[in-house]
Amino acid sequence: MKILLTNDDGIHAPGLWAAARVLRQVGQVFVVAPDREQSGVGASLTLHAPVRARRVTVDPQLSGGEGFGHPVEVYAVEGTPADSCILALEQLVGAVDLVVSGINAGSNLGWDVMVSGTVGAAVQGYVRGYPTIAISVGGVENPQFDAAARLLQLLAGRLFPSGAPGPDQGSPSNNLFLNVNVPNQPLTGIAGVRITTLGSRSYGETIRIEGNGARQRYWISRNRLIATNPEQGTDLWALRNNYASITPLQATLGHQEHVPAVEALLEGIAAQLLVHDD
Amino acid sequence: MKILLTNDDGIHAPGLWAAARVLRQVGQVFVVAPDREQSGVGASLTLHAPVRARRVTVDPQLSGGEGFGHPVEVYAVEGTPADSCILALEQLVGAVDLVVSGINAGSNLGWDVMVSGTVGAAVQGYVRGYPTIAISVGGVENPQFDAAARLLQLLAGRLFPSGAPGPDQGSPSNNLFLNVNVPNQPLTGIAGVRITTLGSRSYGETIRIEGNGARQRYWISRNRLIATNPEQGTDLWALRNNYASITPLQATLGHQEHVPAVEALLEGIAAQLLVHDD
Amino acid sequence: MKILLTNDDGIHAPGLWAAARVLRQVGQVFVVAPDREQSGVGASLTLHAPVRARRVTVDPQLSGGEGFGHPVEVYAVEGTPADSCILALEQLVGAVDLVVSGINAGSNLGWDVMVSGTVGAAVQGYVRGYPTIAISVGGVENPQFDAAARLLQLLAGRLFPSGAPGPDQGSPSNNLFLNVNVPNQPLTGIAGVRITTLGSRSYGETIRIEGNGARQRYWISRNRLIATNPEQGTDLWALRNNYASITPLQATLGHQEHVPAVEALLEGIAAQLLVHDD
Amino acid sequence: MKILLTNDDGIHAPGLWAAARVLRQVGQVFVVAPDREQSGVGASLTLHAPVRARRVTVDPQLSGGEGFGHPVEVYAVEGTPADSCILALEQLVGAVDLVVSGINAGSNLGWDVMVSGTVGAAVQGYVRGYPTIAISVGGVENPQFDAAARLLQLLAGRLFPSGAPGPDQGSPSNNLFLNVNVPNQPLTGIAGVRITTLGSRSYGETIRIEGNGARQRYWISRNRLIATNPEQGTDLWALRNNYASITPLQATLGHQEHVPAVEALLEGIAAQLLVHDD
Repeated sequence: MKILLTNDDGIHAPGLWAAARVLRQVGQVFVVAPDREQSGVGASLTLHAPVRARRVTVDPQLSGGEGFGHPVEVYAVEGTPADSCILALEQLVGAVDLVVSGINAGSNLGWDVMVSGTVGAAVQGYVRGYPTIAISVGGVENPQFDAAARLLQLLAGRLFPSGAPGPDQGSPSNNLFLNVNVPNQPLTGIAGVRITTLGSRSYGETIRIEGNGARQRYWISRNRLIATNPEQGTDLWALRNNYASITPLQATLGHQEHVPAVEALLEGIAAQLLVHDD
Repeated sequence: MKILLTNDDGIHAPGLWAAARVLRQVGQVFVVAPDREQSGVGASLTLHAPVRARRVTVDPQLSGGEGFGHPVEVYAVEGTPADSCILALEQLVGAVDLVVSGINAGSNLGWDVMVSGTVGAAVQGYVRGYPTIAISVGGVENPQFDAAARLLQLLAGRLFPSGAPGPDQGSPSNNLFLNVNVPNQPLTGIAGVRITTLGSRSYGETIRIEGNGARQRYWISRNRLIATNPEQGTDLWALRNNYASITPLQATLGHQEHVPAVEALLEGIAAQLLVHDD
Repeated sequence: MKILLTNDDGIHAPGLWAAARVLRQVGQVFVVAPDREQSGVGASLTLHAPVRARRVTVDPQLSGGEGFGHPVEVYAVEGTPADSCILALEQLVGAVDLVVSGINAGSNLGWDVMVSGTVGAAVQGYVRGYPTIAISVGGVENPQFDAAARLLQLLAGRLFPSGAPGPDQGSPSNNLFLNVNVPNQPLTGIAGVRITTLGSRSYGETIRIEGNGARQRYWISRNRLIATNPEQGTDLWALRNNYASITPLQATLGHQEHVPAVEALLEGIAAQLLVHDD
Repeated sequence: MKILLTNDDGIHAPGLWAAARVLRQVGQVFVVAPDREQSGVGASLTLHAPVRARRVTVDPQLSGGEGFGHPVEVYAVEGTPADSCILALEQLVGAVDLVVSGINAGSNLGWDVMVSGTVGAAVQGYVRGYPTIAISVGGVENPQFDAAARLLQLLAGRLFPSGAPGPDQGSPSNNLFLNVNVPNQPLTGIAGVRITTLGSRSYGETIRIEGNGARQRYWISRNRLIATNPEQGTDLWALRNNYASITPLQATLGHQEHVPAVEALLEGIAAQLLVHDD
């Protein structure tokens, strides 16, 4: 069983290696991740410049020491998380059985997933037909990865009960894309696990101005809390109540419920457009 | 009526000015757009470096000449399309009545919207509660903007029939997010207008390798056609049949249909996680 | 007579256009400059990514209005000042009679020239055998370009008295590389013109720390005044005494005066190296 | 004795660690280097964005194994070589006794030093008053670092014969700045050591065009050999004749020999400037 592990905090992030340590007990792990931290880049690709990737040797302690589970092969990519995932699946590693992105230090909830590099990398695994897990813990400063790592191990074990992909591997029913968020607690602090829906905007952006005149610059921060009272059943609600949240995702922004409103808006527009009333 | 116009092809792109020329007949246009072309950046934000924005004067011919409709105020942003939209709405312009992103040279269909800067900018208008239109034409090399500009003008006129926002402006029912794709044809070549669903992957990535050894570099291109036979009713299908396509979008990746499969997968996992069988 | 005009403050900088207005009275001006401000990049080249250049039309008022002197052809380069100069001389413009870089807002004195984009662009003209002028005024916030523009016009007129390159053009004797710094004063405030030597370090760097832990970042600023009492005859001394300073430059860092000390240091080292005492 | 070791090939470059292995036998080595390869950036500084630095643990084999000489402390900097050197000397490490930049894979000869990151980093040590060595080998593809490492060890031993800085440390006479280039040969292939002068332009730039129309891009390469017959006594000549070349450098571009020509050019210009004949 082959597992691609990537992230957006970069190749040196402790959360990546917390994931590597549990995953290498499940299968052969290939780490292909950005060489630098990449928060906020979402699903962006590098299309106008070349990307470099470097095979690296890392301190074996990072992944649990020598002789601990399957070997780990590691590449550092001078690009975005999505670049890393594409480069892995199309070139450096090839087909895998599972794609994991994380463990991110900081939650990826609600609308945040649109600008999340963790999810942005994962989506490249999902659209290629692989079971995919994006996983984060709800703390940036002192992240605790133990509970998330344990949950990741359980999820991988359930996706592949025999420790290897089954005959229906690759079938649409098995092609799940899970966005997992775990409270920043030790295992004993977790209230349970909830299957949730993606919430709405959790944080808004604020602008800080620096300098004057021609030297003026703007800093964008995502620090304005919007979801003060999140709806029950959402990922935001779950995390705020100390539940680990698991949200099934897709890779489309289509909005069927708005079709009637759009139909009303557009009634007769084709005639108007094509008669070109000029 | 105030309109924010942005794009991902950059402040100098002809498609932006084709949009400006029709929109300034509808309202006061503020152009806030990247100073450089930004394809493939999706919804990415610049969070770890400051962004600069510069008020610019452009050749008046670009927007239809002096004294033609309402005045146009223009800012060039050293950042992504989403940076530009956020900076406009939070700082440079403030609240508006309509957000338009485009007219992009090159379609944004199906799963492409995840890495589209055109849609990535627009989404920042939508999540702030503004009616939002992302608009593209299906040709990169010799884009023809006339039909798309005419359709954009009609859409703006229908959203604001009186030429000004109505009393329910800002209500959720009016907060539509439309992804518009127009065939690269003169108006006479357009077969009609279709309300569509977002298709699946249209293009896959390929990797081109350059150089050897330590100098090896990878170029990512999105040029491998996947949707050779798109499903009827999708945006891909519409464009391939010379229809202008209008797809209602949302800003979430949540996937309700996968909930049962996830429930089955997770049965009893909380107990397993929390008893921590170590 | 063909003149290449570049800078490091970018294509929109007022100082560039103050230079364009006087130079187009002397010859045909080609502006090839970065599309963004580029301070501190020195002579750096973009070798690992492609550079884009775009022919641009600018507000004719910028260069003194239509029909004012020779026409001006303008390119914006997504690269460094040195990239711009190389691209102009090797591709976009070809051979010229004079290279001018500036007028920079902020002096480029003493050791500062090593990290100056203004000088870094100019050096690419000089090493190709063209007479070259780098020119700056001593004020960043409210730069006054009139005196510098007038001096630039005089210098160009003296390099080409007949308004055209003479027969000895391109000969080494004519291949001067002048670093010109003008006090930030109106013409009436200038005490005179001095031929100077390059001073030593004028400003040192300081580091400002931002954020904590994994989010810690360092800002480098060049704001620590070192040359409090500059030696008479240097460019720093001249500017501080309200003289315009003209310093002849070369493009080498070789240090003949240190040869004896190095000879003493290295005595017998070859024998030691080659006998390889291992 | 404290030694700062930096480079422009990045923290993972074998040449850096070849230097670390010999220098840690001389003193306490602090490696502060870019996290990515940075060729062609010269002395450029990052002034408009924050720089991150990360303490890293590297595979101990890289620096010769545990318990081999003095310990090595390592930082990776998300910036230029000059950023790295400044950050080290002003913040991360503080004062040192020796600054070494290299061992670079690829020579840095003649005018190349103006765009060399190896020299660009070193110059920041020299202007702060530290003895400084920039060192390179003449091969990019299969660089052989043994001879250069041995020469570096000898140079450090001669600068500090007692293994520690002497009482005159920091005095100008001891503040040498040496640019060392070693042929890409095993020790037995080195013909000797020469004190040289900096040659002129060794390589010129060529431009390769890619794409068409709005997608056109330019690649700058430094691959056009200019110095086909280098002058005897120069660094280019030495390397071509299999000598290790040691060139004393300074950090100024001043050109005293051109003063008479400039005096002739400028005769009476102050009067002309200040009477302002308008």
